[in-house]
Amino acid sequence: MQFKISTKGFTDIIDITERVSEIVKNSKVKDGICLISSPGSTCGITTIEYESGMIKDLKRTLEKIAPMNKDYEHCKKWGDCNGYAHVRSALIKPFLAVLIEGGRLVLGQWQQIAFLDFDNRSREREVSVKIISS
Amino acid sequence: MQFKISTKGFTDIIDITERVSEIVKNSKVKDGICLISSPGSTCGITTIEYESGMIKDLKRTLEKIAPMNKDYEHCKKWGDCNGYAHVRSALIKPFLAVLIEGGRLVLGQWQQIAFLDFDNRSREREVSVKIISS
Amino acid sequence: MQFKISTKGFTDIIDITERVSEIVKNSKVKDGICLISSPGSTCGITTIEYESGMIKDLKRTLEKIAPMNKDYEHCKKWGDCNGYAHVRSALIKPFLAVLIEGGRLVLGQWQQIAFLDFDNRSREREVSVKIISS
Repeated sequence: MQFKISTKGFTDIIDITERVSEIVKNSKVKDGICLISSPGSTCGITTIEYESGMIKDLKRTLEKIAPMNKDYEHCKKWGDCNGYAHVRSALIKPFLAVLIEGGRLVLGQWQQIAFLDFDNRSREREVSVKIISS
Repeated sequence: MQFKISTKGFTDIIDITERVSEIVKNSKVKDGICLISSPGSTCGITTIEYESGMIKDLKRTLEKIAPMNKDYEHCKKWGDCNGYAHVRSALIKPFLAVLIEGGRLVLGQWQQIAFLDFDNRSREREVSVKIISS
Repeated sequence: MQFKISTKGFTDIIDITERVSEIVKNSKVKDGICLISSPGSTCGITTIEYESGMIKDLKRTLEKIAPMNKDYEHCKKWGDCNGYAHVRSALIKPFLAVLIEGGRLVLGQWQQIAFLDFDNRSREREVSVKIISS
């Protein structure tokens, strides 16, 4: 199953928990794993407590690790100034696995699935969800 | 399958290899994948050479990436000073996949499965293990 | 399925997309997930746009996060100066999941599967690929 999301780029962080949960529910799988992935080398998927403070904190840390304004070799070579986005994606990775128990995603009370678009422009992204029964 | 572990928090790093191995052994699955996960947004699971030097090195690196004493927006907003823990968890992620071959986890000789509790207090954590036969 | 690769160490970054794709193709699995893993605590697997600029950028960022010349406790204890390699591996993790749709890996146009050997010497590494049909 796939769904699309519109992002603003520049480490736009989007809560996709509901979309994934719906796919899990419709699958009728009670016990297994759910893999969430997005093709691309400038995005990432992880889990966070999705609230505005934490979103700022994560952005700030990623800015420290791989600053947006830094002189990347990727930019020099391709004239494309999203080198930071590629590095962030390699570190976070554009996939996530979540367990399924009792027909539901095993997530904490304060834990959401977050899609991170690091690219330096707004984009439409495709997210793929694969469910494996155990 | 689930098991519980008691942690001291503050990036307590606990070797859970034996617990996971036992579940794999009892499953009788010879060939497949093992997903290890813990619900929550302040913990992580990865593999390390589990020895005291490496544990200190990893803690020091995480302290550099997301310092415990830093002024996080999450803390300002919720009066909860574990902003660093949320950021570390988003980067490390609270899940891990390990392959199963010949009925055993495919791990290196010096490679253990480590549970990291980043939270700023001692906690009892639940770890879920899901085995998928291939 | 396994295959071997020779690396130069020191964060040698190797494109293994073709090797993995061939295994997926031969499996005849049309829909599922592909887990790629390597036993060891000094390597990592992720996806990147595999081009020389990006490779330099990723190396530089990893050098900032966990410098090669830093005084690691792991080194002091074991007389083995690859402490940085262990830390990098704990952060990147030596496994990756990629979805399979229509018998092919779901990857972006500019996205390759990269094996990273952080160790401080050349090595022969074994990469395991496990395919689960959904």
